[in-house]
Amino acid sequence: MKIYAKDLKKYLGEVIEFSGFVDNVRDLQWVQFIVIRDSTGKVQVTVEKSEEKNKELVEIVSNLPLESTVKIEGMLMDAPKVKMGGMEIIPTKIEVTSTSENELPFNYKNLEGVNFDTRLDYRFIDLRSDKNILMFQVQTELVRYMREYLYENDFMEIHTPKFIETASESGAEVFEVKYFDRKAYLAQSPQFYKQMAIASGFSKVFEVAPCFRAENSNTSRHATEFTSFDVEFSYIDSYEDVMKLEADMLRYALLKVKEKYGESISSVFGIDINVPTLPFPVMTLADIYKELDERYGYKVSDGEKTDLTTEAERLVYRLAKEKYNHEFMFVVDFPAEKRAFYHMRDENGVLQGYDLIWKGVEITTGAQREHRYNEVVKNAKEKKLDNDVKFYLEFFKYGCPPHGGFAIGIDRLTMLLLDIPSIKETQFLFRGPNRLDP
Amino acid sequence: MKIYAKDLKKYLGEVIEFSGFVDNVRDLQWVQFIVIRDSTGKVQVTVEKSEEKNKELVEIVSNLPLESTVKIEGMLMDAPKVKMGGMEIIPTKIEVTSTSENELPFNYKNLEGVNFDTRLDYRFIDLRSDKNILMFQVQTELVRYMREYLYENDFMEIHTPKFIETASESGAEVFEVKYFDRKAYLAQSPQFYKQMAIASGFSKVFEVAPCFRAENSNTSRHATEFTSFDVEFSYIDSYEDVMKLEADMLRYALLKVKEKYGESISSVFGIDINVPTLPFPVMTLADIYKELDERYGYKVSDGEKTDLTTEAERLVYRLAKEKYNHEFMFVVDFPAEKRAFYHMRDENGVLQGYDLIWKGVEITTGAQREHRYNEVVKNAKEKKLDNDVKFYLEFFKYGCPPHGGFAIGIDRLTMLLLDIPSIKETQFLFRGPNRLDP
Repeated sequence: MKIYAKDLKKYLGEVIEFSGFVDNVRDLQWVQFIVIRDSTGKVQVTVEKSEEKNKELVEIVSNLPLESTVKIEGMLMDAPKVKMGGMEIIPTKIEVTSTSENELPFNYKNLEGVNFDTRLDYRFIDLRSDKNILMFQVQTELVRYMREYLYENDFMEIHTPKFIETASESGAEVFEVKYFDRKAYLAQSPQFYKQMAIASGFSKVFEVAPCFRAENSNTSRHATEFTSFDVEFSYIDSYEDVMKLEADMLRYALLKVKEKYGESISSVFGIDINVPTLPFPVMTLADIYKELDERYGYKVSDGEKTDLTTEAERLVYRLAKEKYNHEFMFVVDFPAEKRAFYHMRDENGVLQGYDLIWKGVEITTGAQREHRYNEVVKNAKEKKLDNDVKFYLEFFKYGCPPHGGFAIGIDRLTMLLLDIPSIKETQFLFRGPNRLDP
Repeated sequence: MKIYAKDLKKYLGEVIEFSGFVDNVRDLQWVQFIVIRDSTGKVQVTVEKSEEKNKELVEIVSNLPLESTVKIEGMLMDAPKVKMGGMEIIPTKIEVTSTSENELPFNYKNLEGVNFDTRLDYRFIDLRSDKNILMFQVQTELVRYMREYLYENDFMEIHTPKFIETASESGAEVFEVKYFDRKAYLAQSPQFYKQMAIASGFSKVFEVAPCFRAENSNTSRHATEFTSFDVEFSYIDSYEDVMKLEADMLRYALLKVKEKYGESISSVFGIDINVPTLPFPVMTLADIYKELDERYGYKVSDGEKTDLTTEAERLVYRLAKEKYNHEFMFVVDFPAEKRAFYHMRDENGVLQGYDLIWKGVEITTGAQREHRYNEVVKNAKEKKLDNDVKFYLEFFKYGCPPHGGFAIGIDRLTMLLLDIPSIKETQFLFRGPNRLDP
């Protein structure tokens, strides 16, 4: 098994094998310094040119393009002057396991002046940077512990179909697929199917899976395909149970991320992870607009007051920090007419749901769902969707417990966590209207 | 928070709330027995008809269709004669939270004579059975601990795009998507992209995500969409490292499943989970055909000897049990020409990979991959794929460590684990050429 850079200390004074990418070579008059990199760190390899036994090694290193991969055999020595962990490997053998072209398409270690599309064209080079490797390690940890929280609370994981028969749900556009001799569509979200699990008596479910949106828009937050973390659970008393679970889950995962990567994040990204306190602050939409006006002179028309504007979302961050010393804010009491028909509303038409704003960006819409057959049929008819969602309405005919849930886009979550400007940089491979490759 | 049936014992003698589906009602002369079910078990609710204060409750229960959902308030009493955990709830309040139609489309508790398509049409009813709920609890646990094993070994989780620009890879058909003013295709597997992660220096990656296959075939093992558990990792010495990791991971996850659900599986499915011993047995393809002939008189033509026939797979189970007392068998030394171009081969054209057979069904193809640019280009050209996979070949131009990996379909794994005849029953919602709904 390969020894990783992070574990090297354990092998001081031993003859080891170490594999990785050639991160740097300095070929001086008397000595060659090679830096070898793996996904957990770097180590220096030192070749004394004067020593006769090193002749072959010197030859190899002299012709070694950066970013090639090698397997080194040698003694791991204490070397207090070496920056990389105070160690160096004195090699007896260097095997070149793959050879890189001499010239990279761009220098991924210094992105100044590099065209963003070039980076995406050669994403497999772009991803090699310390920042990007760390970003995906952090995302792994974040999602791991979001899941872990749910497992520990007896949630079941489901895998719902992405092929659907009818183009439906909200206004967002769906992709059409040639499905043998007919058409199918790609699911925009697992919303209907996670609710089907609830109607099937699964009690508590989640899914982490791709969602597809045929929106021809180019913003820092949108993609035609993204990974959604979807949660739905039964036997709730109100949408407040949903908010509570989401806040608990996020706190738990952020705590775990900070524990493992807090220091690296601070040194590589220059930011601190703030583990949020519980409960998260909650304000009504009306109170928010009132206070944004009073505090910051932010005014909107009555028409705009039915939802949060992008600018209002941004200001909510300032408000959350100043008023509650918090990065998160739940916003409640939206008018129901602008929301999806499956959200529950009270007798006054007030949505039994919420948006969650983190650092000025909406990361979640959550709600209690309408689980009563007659009511959900009525709501679908009101939006003239009852034919499109016929299959969905069936789920509620034979008993379905009260339930609610939410969804979080994990690319967006990663973007906000690490203060990265766009999800084009947090997706492993971004997909947009003009971007299908590599 | 809802109290679940499995935890009821803790609340004996207390006034509690209990919610669930109405599983059964027996309305006798003097008493009504209602059985309430949640995803973890059942409890009896007992209403004495003679008591004046119960008048309203009796009325509710008399008009309560099965499969409705209720919230009960009452005292949880010790009742040794009651089969369901020796407890009963004496209610003071019964709230009907949703009402089922009186007649179900079919009786999911007794599937005799029920048309299979009816079950799939009303999958949300079909899934309510004890078997199906347990099946997805078991699948959740299985996948949880397969992931957990990888997390503990420093794997990163990736989410690769399902939209691809060119229809490529193996012979299997791909689905075509209308992508704005051009065409896109749906990825048949994350193979190329998990290898891209390796070329990006991610070292060890996995993904659990849907794969799409436009195969117009109707077997018990195939679907147009399925969930694949994909693993890929760097710095291996040979495909034997891949086999070892897969065997370790499966053993670990099966151990965890047995610990938590062994008893339930035995009582509901009538089978024992066998935690496999390590290492799994390994045989060459040639030796297998030799031994199948010698032991069972199974003969095939030389042409068929380049791969395992379906019948040979089945017999391998018998061989594995008789020769090694094992349910699993690794089969190695396939000729490379029938395998994908990205698999590594040795100088004799022998595939550096394997199939893993469990209970007579292939669950995995794994291999070391060809990571050397010149070699992988040559292999792609040989299969006349070099134009289709141009974007993929680029990944190897700038250094890529030796690596290998495998994939497991989790629907198929669940099918084999619980001896279920078809993945149509282990997918949450099966998708096939003739099945797109609900």
